Amino acid sequence: MLSKNKIKFIHSLDTKKARKEENAFLVEGFKSVDEFLPSFHCKLLVATSSYFSTHPKCIADEIIEVTPEELSRASLLKTPQEVLAVFEQPFYKLDFEAPSSSLCLALDGVQDPGNLGTIIRIADWFGIEDLFCSQNTVDVYNPKTIQATMGALSRVKVHYTDLIPFIQTLHNVPVYGTFLDGDVIYQSELSPTGLIIMGNEGNGISPEIENIVTQRLYIPNYPKERKTSESLNVAVATSIICAEFRRRFI
Amino acid sequence: MLSKNKIKFIHSLDTKKARKEENAFLVEGFKSVDEFLPSFHCKLLVATSSYFSTHPKCIADEIIEVTPEELSRASLLKTPQEVLAVFEQPFYKLDFEAPSSSLCLALDGVQDPGNLGTIIRIADWFGIEDLFCSQNTVDVYNPKTIQATMGALSRVKVHYTDLIPFIQTLHNVPVYGTFLDGDVIYQSELSPTGLIIMGNEGNGISPEIENIVTQRLYIPNYPKERKTSESLNVAVATSIICAEFRRRFI
Repeated sequence: MLSKNKIKFIHSLDTKKARKEENAFLVEGFKSVDEFLPSFHCKLLVATSSYFSTHPKCIADEIIEVTPEELSRASLLKTPQEVLAVFEQPFYKLDFEAPSSSLCLALDGVQDPGNLGTIIRIADWFGIEDLFCSQNTVDVYNPKTIQATMGALSRVKVHYTDLIPFIQTLHNVPVYGTFLDGDVIYQSELSPTGLIIMGNEGNGISPEIENIVTQRLYIPNYPKERKTSESLNVAVATSIICAEFRRRFI
Repeated sequence: MLSKNKIKFIHSLDTKKARKEENAFLVEGFKSVDEFLPSFHCKLLVATSSYFSTHPKCIADEIIEVTPEELSRASLLKTPQEVLAVFEQPFYKLDFEAPSSSLCLALDGVQDPGNLGTIIRIADWFGIEDLFCSQNTVDVYNPKTIQATMGALSRVKVHYTDLIPFIQTLHNVPVYGTFLDGDVIYQSELSPTGLIIMGNEGNGISPEIENIVTQRLYIPNYPKERKTSESLNVAVATSIICAEFRRRFI
Protein backbone atom coordinates (compact mmCIF):
# COMPACT_ATOMS: atom_id res chain seq x y z
CA MET A 1 0.00 0.00 0.00
CA LEU A 2 1.43 3.32 -1.13
CA SER A 3 0.52 6.40 0.91
CA LYS A 4 -0.54 9.66 -0.74
CA ASN A 5 2.59 11.27 0.67
CA LYS A 6 4.82 8.68 -0.96
CA ILE A 7 3.12 9.21 -4.32
CA LYS A 8 3.53 12.97 -3.87
CA PHE A 9 7.21 12.47 -3.05
CA ILE A 10 7.78 10.31 -6.14
CA HIS A 11 5.98 12.78 -8.40
CA SER A 12 8.01 15.65 -6.92
CA LEU A 13 11.17 14.06 -8.35
CA ASP A 14 10.07 15.26 -11.76
CA THR A 15 11.41 18.70 -10.73
CA LYS A 16 15.07 19.60 -10.35
CA LYS A 17 14.37 21.58 -7.17
CA ALA A 18 12.93 18.57 -5.32
CA ARG A 19 15.66 16.25 -6.65
CA LYS A 20 18.27 18.65 -5.28
CA GLU A 21 16.56 19.06 -1.91
CA GLU A 22 16.12 15.32 -1.52
CA ASN A 23 19.49 14.50 -3.13
CA ALA A 24 17.59 11.79 -4.96
CA PHE A 25 16.42 10.69 -8.39
CA LEU A 26 13.82 8.38 -9.86
CA VAL A 27 14.46 5.33 -12.06
CA GLU A 28 11.64 3.40 -13.74
CA GLY A 29 11.47 0.00 -15.40
CA PHE A 30 13.16 -3.21 -14.39
CA LYS A 31 15.98 -3.06 -16.91
CA SER A 32 17.15 0.32 -15.68
CA VAL A 33 16.50 -0.43 -11.98
CA ASP A 34 18.52 -3.65 -12.33
CA GLU A 35 21.47 -1.66 -13.68
CA PHE A 36 21.37 0.85 -10.81
CA LEU A 37 20.70 -1.47 -7.86
CA PRO A 38 24.18 -3.01 -7.54
CA SER A 39 26.07 0.29 -7.50
CA PHE A 40 23.76 2.98 -6.10
CA HIS A 41 22.10 3.50 -2.74
CA CYS A 42 18.39 2.72 -3.14
CA LYS A 43 16.16 4.68 -0.78
CA LEU A 44 12.81 3.39 -1.94
CA LEU A 45 11.76 0.55 -4.21
CA VAL A 46 8.13 0.23 -5.31
CA ALA A 47 7.18 -2.81 -7.37
CA THR A 48 4.46 -5.26 -8.25
CA SER A 49 4.44 -8.90 -7.14
CA SER A 50 5.55 -9.99 -10.63
CA TYR A 51 8.77 -7.98 -10.13
CA PHE A 52 9.48 -9.54 -6.76
CA SER A 53 8.91 -13.04 -8.14
CA THR A 54 11.91 -12.54 -10.43
CA HIS A 55 13.88 -10.30 -8.02
CA PRO A 56 13.50 -11.88 -4.58
CA LYS A 57 16.60 -10.25 -3.05
CA CYS A 58 16.46 -6.49 -3.70
CA ILE A 59 18.22 -4.26 -1.20
CA ALA A 60 16.72 -0.84 -0.42
CA ASP A 61 16.02 1.32 2.66
CA GLU A 62 12.32 0.79 2.07
CA ILE A 63 10.55 -1.75 -0.14
CA ILE A 64 6.85 -1.54 -0.94
CA GLU A 65 4.81 -4.06 -2.90
CA VAL A 66 1.95 -2.51 -4.86
CA THR A 67 -0.74 -3.47 -7.34
CA PRO A 68 -0.24 -2.48 -10.99
CA GLU A 69 -2.89 0.23 -10.47
CA GLU A 70 -0.98 1.73 -7.55
CA LEU A 71 2.23 1.65 -9.57
CA SER A 72 0.43 3.52 -12.34
CA ARG A 73 -0.58 6.25 -9.93
CA ALA A 74 2.99 6.64 -8.68
CA SER A 75 4.72 6.42 -12.07
CA LEU A 76 5.59 9.34 -14.35
CA LEU A 77 5.35 7.04 -17.40
CA LYS A 78 2.33 6.31 -19.53
CA THR A 79 3.08 2.59 -19.38
CA PRO A 80 4.90 1.80 -16.10
CA GLN A 81 7.00 -1.36 -16.08
CA GLU A 82 6.68 -3.37 -12.84
CA VAL A 83 9.05 -1.24 -10.74
CA LEU A 84 10.24 2.22 -9.86
CA ALA A 85 13.03 3.13 -7.48
CA VAL A 86 14.38 6.24 -5.80
CA PHE A 87 18.18 6.38 -5.55
CA GLU A 88 20.55 8.72 -3.77
CA GLN A 89 22.47 11.04 -6.12
CA PRO A 90 26.09 9.85 -6.11
CA PHE A 91 28.88 12.28 -5.34
CA TYR A 92 31.97 12.08 -7.57
CA LYS A 93 35.09 14.06 -6.75
CA LEU A 94 35.96 16.18 -9.78
CA ASP A 95 38.82 14.36 -11.45
CA PHE A 96 41.15 16.94 -12.99
CA GLU A 97 43.44 14.19 -14.22
CA ALA A 98 40.84 12.19 -16.16
CA PRO A 99 41.37 13.94 -19.54
CA SER A 100 45.15 13.38 -19.29
CA SER A 101 44.79 9.64 -18.94
CA SER A 102 41.55 8.81 -20.76
CA LEU A 103 39.14 10.12 -23.37
CA CYS A 104 36.47 12.35 -21.76
CA LEU A 105 33.46 14.32 -22.96
CA ALA A 106 32.29 17.80 -21.98
CA LEU A 107 28.88 19.30 -22.75
CA ASP A 108 28.52 23.03 -23.16
CA GLY A 109 24.85 23.81 -22.58
CA VAL A 110 23.04 20.75 -23.94
CA GLN A 111 19.37 21.43 -23.21
CA ASP A 112 17.34 18.42 -24.25
CA PRO A 113 17.05 15.69 -21.57
CA GLY A 114 16.74 12.98 -24.23
CA ASN A 115 19.93 14.15 -25.95
CA LEU A 116 21.83 14.09 -22.66
CA GLY A 117 20.59 10.56 -21.92
CA THR A 118 21.52 9.36 -25.40
CA ILE A 119 24.99 10.91 -25.04
CA ILE A 120 25.51 9.04 -21.75
CA ARG A 121 24.54 5.78 -23.48
CA ILE A 122 27.06 6.58 -26.25
CA ALA A 123 29.77 7.41 -23.68
CA ASP A 124 29.14 4.08 -21.98
CA TRP A 125 29.37 2.17 -25.28
CA PHE A 126 32.69 3.79 -26.11
CA GLY A 127 34.19 3.43 -22.64
CA ILE A 128 34.13 7.15 -21.82
CA GLU A 129 33.76 7.17 -18.06
CA ASP A 130 33.78 10.89 -17.26
CA LEU A 131 31.35 13.44 -18.65
CA PHE A 132 31.83 17.10 -17.63
CA CYS A 133 28.74 19.29 -17.98
CA SER A 134 28.57 23.08 -17.90
CA GLN A 135 26.29 24.41 -15.17
CA ASN A 136 23.68 25.33 -17.79
CA THR A 137 23.47 21.80 -19.18
CA VAL A 138 20.17 20.02 -18.45
CA ASP A 139 20.04 18.06 -15.16
CA VAL A 140 21.23 14.48 -15.58
CA TYR A 141 18.68 13.31 -12.99
CA ASN A 142 15.75 14.50 -15.10
CA PRO A 143 13.56 11.37 -15.47
CA LYS A 144 13.61 11.72 -19.27
CA THR A 145 17.41 11.68 -19.21
CA ILE A 146 17.53 8.66 -16.90
CA GLN A 147 15.07 6.88 -19.19
CA ALA A 148 17.16 7.59 -22.29
CA THR A 149 20.39 6.32 -20.68
CA MET A 150 18.87 2.82 -20.42
CA GLY A 151 20.98 2.15 -17.33
CA ALA A 152 24.25 3.47 -18.81
CA LEU A 153 24.37 6.19 -16.14
CA SER A 154 25.43 3.52 -13.69
CA ARG A 155 28.78 3.29 -15.55
CA VAL A 156 29.43 6.94 -16.50
CA LYS A 157 30.37 9.62 -13.94
CA VAL A 158 28.65 12.92 -14.68
CA HIS A 159 30.18 16.07 -13.16
CA TYR A 160 28.73 19.61 -13.25
CA THR A 161 31.34 22.32 -13.21
CA ASP A 162 32.32 25.67 -14.72
CA LEU A 163 33.89 24.38 -17.91
CA ILE A 164 36.26 27.30 -18.58
CA PRO A 165 38.29 27.14 -15.33
CA PHE A 166 38.16 23.35 -15.49
CA ILE A 167 39.61 23.28 -19.01
CA GLN A 168 42.21 25.89 -18.03
CA THR A 169 43.62 23.54 -15.37
CA LEU A 170 44.38 20.94 -18.06
CA HIS A 171 47.96 20.98 -19.32
CA ASN A 172 49.10 19.38 -22.55
CA VAL A 173 45.67 17.88 -23.05
CA PRO A 174 44.05 18.17 -26.48
CA VAL A 175 40.65 19.88 -26.35
CA TYR A 176 38.49 18.96 -29.35
CA GLY A 177 35.39 20.74 -30.58
CA THR A 178 33.22 20.40 -33.70
CA PHE A 179 32.68 23.40 -35.97
CA LEU A 180 31.28 23.81 -39.45
CA ASP A 181 34.66 25.24 -40.52
CA GLY A 182 36.71 22.60 -38.67
CA ASP A 183 39.11 20.05 -40.19
CA VAL A 184 37.61 16.87 -41.60
CA ILE A 185 37.80 14.48 -38.64
CA TYR A 186 38.96 11.55 -40.80
CA GLN A 187 42.03 13.50 -41.85
CA SER A 188 42.82 14.87 -38.38
CA GLU A 189 45.25 13.55 -35.83
CA LEU A 190 43.30 12.21 -32.85
CA SER A 191 44.72 11.28 -29.47
CA PRO A 192 43.57 8.31 -27.35
CA THR A 193 43.18 10.75 -24.42
CA GLY A 194 41.81 14.28 -24.11
CA LEU A 195 38.55 16.17 -23.91
CA ILE A 196 35.86 16.35 -26.61
CA ILE A 197 33.47 19.28 -26.22
CA MET A 198 29.94 19.16 -27.66
CA GLY A 199 27.83 22.31 -27.81
CA ASN A 200 24.26 23.45 -27.36
CA GLU A 201 21.56 22.19 -29.77
CA GLY A 202 20.88 25.55 -31.40
CA ASN A 203 24.06 27.54 -30.88
CA GLY A 204 26.88 25.02 -30.73
CA ILE A 205 29.93 25.69 -28.57
CA SER A 206 29.92 29.08 -26.82
CA PRO A 207 32.52 31.66 -28.00
CA GLU A 208 34.40 31.63 -24.65
CA ILE A 209 34.93 27.89 -24.88
CA GLU A 210 35.63 28.00 -28.61
CA ASN A 211 38.68 30.14 -27.69
CA ILE A 212 40.24 27.36 -25.65
CA VAL A 213 39.56 24.52 -28.08
CA THR A 214 42.90 23.30 -29.43
CA GLN A 215 41.60 21.21 -32.34
CA ARG A 216 38.60 22.07 -34.51
CA LEU A 217 36.90 19.06 -36.10
CA TYR A 218 34.19 18.64 -38.71
CA ILE A 219 32.03 15.66 -39.69
CA PRO A 220 31.80 15.94 -43.47
CA ASN A 221 28.44 15.63 -45.17
CA TYR A 222 28.22 13.60 -48.38
CA PRO A 223 28.52 14.35 -51.19
CA LYS A 224 30.16 17.65 -50.34
CA GLU A 225 28.28 19.72 -52.91
CA ARG A 226 24.74 18.47 -52.10
CA LYS A 227 22.45 20.84 -50.18
CA THR A 228 21.81 19.34 -46.75
CA SER A 229 20.62 20.13 -43.22
CA GLU A 230 22.54 22.83 -41.36
CA SER A 231 23.88 20.38 -38.82
CA LEU A 232 23.50 17.00 -37.17
CA ASN A 233 21.68 16.39 -33.89
CA VAL A 234 24.17 16.78 -31.01
CA ALA A 235 23.85 13.16 -29.82
CA VAL A 236 24.32 11.92 -33.38
CA ALA A 237 27.43 14.09 -33.82
CA THR A 238 28.77 12.82 -30.48
CA SER A 239 28.36 9.23 -31.60
CA ILE A 240 30.16 9.71 -34.92
CA ILE A 241 33.05 11.50 -33.21
CA CYS A 242 33.40 8.95 -30.40
CA ALA A 243 33.24 6.07 -32.90
CA GLU A 244 36.03 7.66 -34.96
CA PHE A 245 38.26 8.23 -31.91
CA ARG A 246 37.84 4.61 -30.87
CA ARG A 247 38.22 3.20 -34.40
CA ARG A 248 41.75 4.58 -34.48
CA PHE A 249 42.83 2.63 -31.41
CA ILE A 250 41.00 -0.68 -31.69
CA MET B 1 -8.89 35.13 -37.94
CA LEU B 2 -8.80 31.36 -37.57
CA SER B 3 -12.14 29.54 -37.44
CA LYS B 4 -12.85 26.83 -34.89
CA ASN B 5 -13.11 24.37 -37.75
CA LYS B 6 -9.65 25.26 -39.04
CA ILE B 7 -8.18 24.79 -35.55
CA LYS B 8 -9.96 21.46 -35.28
CA PHE B 9 -8.60 20.43 -38.69
CA ILE B 10 -5.02 21.38 -37.71
CA HIS B 11 -5.26 19.52 -34.40
CA SER B 12 -6.68 16.46 -36.16
CA LEU B 13 -3.38 16.12 -38.06
CA ASP B 14 -1.85 14.80 -34.85
CA THR B 15 -3.49 11.46 -35.71
CA LYS B 16 -2.40 9.13 -38.50
CA LYS B 17 -6.02 8.45 -39.47
CA ALA B 18 -6.78 12.10 -40.19
CA ARG B 19 -3.46 12.61 -41.97
CA LYS B 20 -4.27 9.68 -44.24
CA GLU B 21 -7.84 10.82 -44.93
CA GLU B 22 -6.71 14.36 -45.69
CA ASN B 23 -3.51 13.22 -47.44
CA ALA B 24 -1.83 16.01 -45.49
CA PHE B 25 0.67 16.73 -42.75
CA LEU B 26 1.56 19.56 -40.41
CA VAL B 27 4.88 21.41 -40.24
CA GLU B 28 5.64 23.97 -37.52
CA GLY B 29 8.33 26.61 -37.13
CA PHE B 30 9.77 28.90 -39.77
CA LYS B 31 12.99 26.94 -40.31
CA SER B 32 11.13 23.76 -41.19
CA VAL B 33 8.35 25.53 -43.13
CA ASP B 34 11.00 27.35 -45.17
CA GLU B 35 12.58 24.03 -46.12
CA PHE B 36 9.26 22.54 -47.25
CA LEU B 37 7.71 25.49 -49.08
CA PRO B 38 9.84 25.38 -52.25
CA SER B 39 9.24 21.68 -52.96
CA PHE B 40 5.88 20.66 -51.46
CA HIS B 41 2.31 21.71 -52.15
CA CYS B 42 1.18 23.94 -49.27
CA LYS B 43 -2.56 23.75 -48.61
CA LEU B 44 -2.72 26.11 -45.65
CA LEU B 45 -0.26 28.53 -44.12
CA VAL B 46 -1.04 30.15 -40.76
CA ALA B 47 1.42 32.74 -39.48
CA THR B 48 1.83 35.90 -37.44
CA SER B 49 2.59 39.31 -38.93
CA SER B 50 6.24 38.98 -37.87
CA TYR B 51 6.54 35.93 -40.15
CA PHE B 52 5.02 37.72 -43.13
CA SER B 53 7.33 40.69 -42.63
CA THR B 54 10.29 38.43 -43.38
CA HIS B 55 8.44 36.16 -45.84
CA PRO B 56 6.36 38.47 -48.04
CA LYS B 57 5.96 36.02 -50.94
CA CYS B 58 4.74 32.67 -49.59
CA ILE B 59 2.70 30.50 -51.93
CA ALA B 60 -0.13 28.38 -50.50
CA ASP B 61 -3.74 27.49 -51.37
CA GLU B 62 -4.85 29.48 -48.34
CA ILE B 63 -2.90 31.97 -46.23
CA ILE B 64 -4.19 33.25 -42.89
CA GLU B 65 -2.59 35.90 -40.72
CA VAL B 66 -3.15 35.37 -37.01
CA THR B 67 -2.16 36.84 -33.66
CA PRO B 68 0.43 34.94 -31.58
CA GLU B 69 -2.46 33.89 -29.27
CA GLU B 70 -4.42 32.39 -32.17
CA LEU B 71 -1.29 30.59 -33.38
CA SER B 72 -0.87 29.14 -29.89
CA ARG B 73 -4.39 27.75 -29.98
CA ALA B 74 -3.79 26.11 -33.36
CA SER B 75 -0.29 24.78 -32.62
CA LEU B 76 0.57 21.36 -31.22
CA LEU B 77 3.77 22.77 -29.72
CA LYS B 78 4.24 24.28 -26.27
CA THR B 79 6.13 27.20 -27.79
CA PRO B 80 4.89 27.80 -31.34
CA GLN B 81 7.25 29.64 -33.66
CA GLU B 82 5.54 32.25 -35.87
CA VAL B 83 4.17 29.82 -38.46
CA LEU B 84 2.56 26.48 -39.11
CA ALA B 85 1.70 24.97 -42.46
CA VAL B 86 -0.29 22.06 -43.81
CA PHE B 87 1.28 20.31 -46.80
CA GLU B 88 0.05 17.62 -49.15
CA GLN B 89 1.74 14.25 -48.64
CA PRO B 90 4.00 13.67 -51.64
CA PHE B 91 3.70 10.52 -53.67
CA TYR B 92 6.95 8.83 -54.69
CA LYS B 93 6.98 5.94 -57.09
CA LEU B 94 8.75 3.02 -55.41
CA ASP B 95 12.19 2.98 -56.97
CA PHE B 96 13.34 -0.62 -57.21
CA GLU B 97 16.58 0.47 -58.82
CA ALA B 98 17.69 2.93 -56.11
CA PRO B 99 19.73 0.41 -54.04
CA SER B 100 21.62 -0.71 -57.18
CA SER B 101 22.83 2.78 -57.98
CA SER B 102 23.01 4.51 -54.59
CA LEU B 103 23.24 3.85 -50.87
CA CYS B 104 19.75 3.45 -49.33
CA LEU B 105 18.34 2.82 -45.87
CA ALA B 106 15.49 0.52 -44.79
CA LEU B 107 13.77 0.56 -41.41
CA ASP B 108 12.26 -2.63 -40.04
CA GLY B 109 9.71 -1.56 -37.45
CA VAL B 110 11.23 1.60 -35.94
CA GLN B 111 8.59 2.80 -33.45
CA ASP B 112 9.73 6.08 -31.97
CA PRO B 113 8.76 9.16 -34.02
CA GLY B 114 11.81 11.06 -32.75
CA ASN B 115 14.14 8.26 -33.84
CA LEU B 116 12.60 8.21 -37.33
CA GLY B 117 13.00 11.99 -37.61
CA THR B 118 16.61 11.84 -36.46
CA ILE B 119 17.32 9.05 -38.96
CA ILE B 120 15.91 11.18 -41.80
CA ARG B 121 18.19 14.04 -40.73
CA ILE B 122 21.15 11.61 -40.77
CA ALA B 123 20.15 10.27 -44.20
CA ASP B 124 20.03 13.82 -45.53
CA TRP B 125 23.48 14.64 -44.09
CA PHE B 126 24.99 11.60 -45.72
CA GLY B 127 23.24 12.01 -49.07
CA ILE B 128 20.96 9.00 -48.69
CA GLU B 129 17.94 9.99 -50.72
CA ASP B 130 15.69 6.93 -50.38
CA LEU B 131 14.44 5.47 -47.11
CA PHE B 132 12.30 2.31 -47.28
CA CYS B 133 10.10 1.69 -44.22
CA SER B 134 8.30 -1.51 -43.28
CA GLN B 135 4.54 -1.06 -42.95
CA ASN B 136 4.84 -1.29 -39.15
CA THR B 137 7.35 1.55 -38.94
CA VAL B 138 5.98 4.71 -37.31
CA ASP B 139 4.31 7.21 -39.67
CA VAL B 140 6.78 9.71 -41.11
CA TYR B 141 4.11 12.42 -41.04
CA ASN B 142 3.76 12.22 -37.26
CA PRO B 143 4.35 15.83 -36.10
CA LYS B 144 7.12 14.65 -33.72
CA THR B 145 8.93 13.01 -36.65
CA ILE B 146 8.55 16.09 -38.83
CA GLN B 147 9.88 18.24 -35.97
CA ALA B 148 12.93 15.99 -35.49
CA THR B 149 13.82 16.03 -39.20
CA MET B 150 14.43 19.79 -38.99
CA GLY B 151 13.42 20.13 -42.63
CA ALA B 152 15.54 17.21 -43.89
CA LEU B 153 12.37 15.40 -45.02
CA SER B 154 12.20 17.80 -47.93
CA ARG B 155 15.34 16.12 -49.37
CA VAL B 156 14.76 12.45 -48.46
CA LYS B 157 12.10 10.28 -50.12
CA VAL B 158 10.37 8.00 -47.63
CA HIS B 159 8.57 4.92 -48.99
CA TYR B 160 6.37 2.46 -47.07
CA THR B 161 6.40 -1.03 -48.43
CA ASP B 162 6.54 -4.71 -47.50
CA LEU B 163 10.28 -5.01 -47.03
CA ILE B 164 10.65 -8.72 -47.75
CA PRO B 165 9.24 -8.76 -51.32
CA PHE B 166 10.98 -5.45 -51.97
CA ILE B 167 14.37 -6.80 -50.93
CA GLN B 168 13.74 -10.00 -52.90
CA THR B 169 13.45 -8.00 -56.12
CA LEU B 170 16.99 -6.67 -55.63
CA HIS B 171 19.66 -8.56 -57.57
CA ASN B 172 23.36 -8.39 -56.81
CA VAL B 173 22.74 -5.68 -54.24
CA PRO B 174 24.43 -6.01 -50.85
CA VAL B 175 21.93 -5.96 -47.97
CA TYR B 176 23.57 -4.88 -44.72
CA GLY B 177 22.21 -5.34 -41.21
CA THR B 178 23.68 -4.78 -37.72
CA PHE B 179 23.81 -7.65 -35.26
CA LEU B 180 25.60 -8.17 -31.95
CA ASP B 181 27.40 -11.15 -33.54
CA GLY B 182 28.17 -9.37 -36.81
CA ASP B 183 31.58 -8.54 -38.27
CA VAL B 184 33.33 -5.42 -36.99
CA ILE B 185 32.25 -2.77 -39.49
CA TYR B 186 35.74 -1.24 -39.71
CA GLN B 187 37.16 -4.52 -40.95
CA SER B 188 34.30 -5.26 -43.36
CA GLU B 189 34.12 -4.61 -47.04
CA LEU B 190 31.52 -1.92 -47.72
CA SER B 191 30.07 -0.98 -51.07
CA PRO B 192 29.21 2.58 -52.19
CA THR B 193 25.74 1.30 -53.13
CA GLY B 194 23.27 -1.10 -51.49
CA LEU B 195 20.71 -1.25 -48.72
CA ILE B 196 21.37 -0.82 -44.99
CA ILE B 197 18.62 -2.22 -42.75
CA MET B 198 18.06 -0.89 -39.24
CA GLY B 199 15.78 -2.74 -36.82
CA ASN B 200 13.20 -2.05 -34.15
CA GLU B 201 14.29 -0.31 -30.92
CA GLY B 202 13.71 -3.29 -28.64
CA ASN B 203 13.99 -6.30 -30.92
CA GLY B 204 16.34 -5.32 -33.71
CA ILE B 205 15.88 -6.77 -37.19
CA SER B 206 13.06 -9.32 -37.50
CA PRO B 207 14.06 -12.97 -38.16
CA GLU B 208 12.43 -13.04 -41.63
CA ILE B 209 14.50 -10.07 -42.75
CA GLU B 210 17.63 -11.31 -40.98
CA ASN B 211 17.45 -14.29 -43.36
CA ILE B 212 17.88 -12.11 -46.42
CA VAL B 213 20.65 -9.90 -45.07
CA THR B 214 23.83 -10.59 -47.03
CA GLN B 215 26.34 -8.87 -44.73
CA ARG B 216 26.14 -8.78 -40.93
CA LEU B 217 27.86 -5.78 -39.35
CA TYR B 218 28.72 -4.81 -35.78
CA ILE B 219 29.72 -1.49 -34.21
CA PRO B 220 32.35 -2.50 -31.66
CA ASN B 221 32.14 -1.12 -28.13
CA TYR B 222 35.37 0.00 -26.47
CA PRO B 223 37.30 -1.42 -24.78
CA LYS B 224 36.01 -4.82 -25.83
CA GLU B 225 36.11 -6.36 -22.34
CA ARG B 226 34.35 -3.52 -20.46
CA LYS B 227 30.74 -4.14 -19.36
CA THR B 228 28.49 -1.81 -21.32
CA SER B 229 24.91 -1.16 -22.41
CA GLU B 230 23.24 -3.91 -24.40
CA SER B 231 23.04 -1.80 -27.52
CA LEU B 232 23.10 1.67 -29.01
CA ASN B 233 20.01 3.74 -29.78
CA VAL B 234 18.86 2.96 -33.36
CA ALA B 235 19.40 6.51 -34.66
CA VAL B 236 22.87 6.58 -33.11
CA ALA B 237 23.75 3.23 -34.70
CA THR B 238 22.43 4.49 -38.05
CA SER B 239 24.66 7.54 -37.85
CA ILE B 240 27.83 5.58 -37.08
CA ILE B 241 27.14 3.14 -39.91
CA CYS B 242 26.31 5.82 -42.48
CA ALA B 243 29.40 7.83 -41.45
CA GLU B 244 31.60 4.76 -41.93
CA PHE B 245 30.13 3.96 -45.37
CA ARG B 246 30.73 7.52 -46.49
CA ARG B 247 34.21 7.79 -44.95
CA ARG B 248 35.36 5.02 -47.27
CA PHE B 249 34.42 6.90 -50.42
CA ILE B 250 35.22 10.54 -49.62
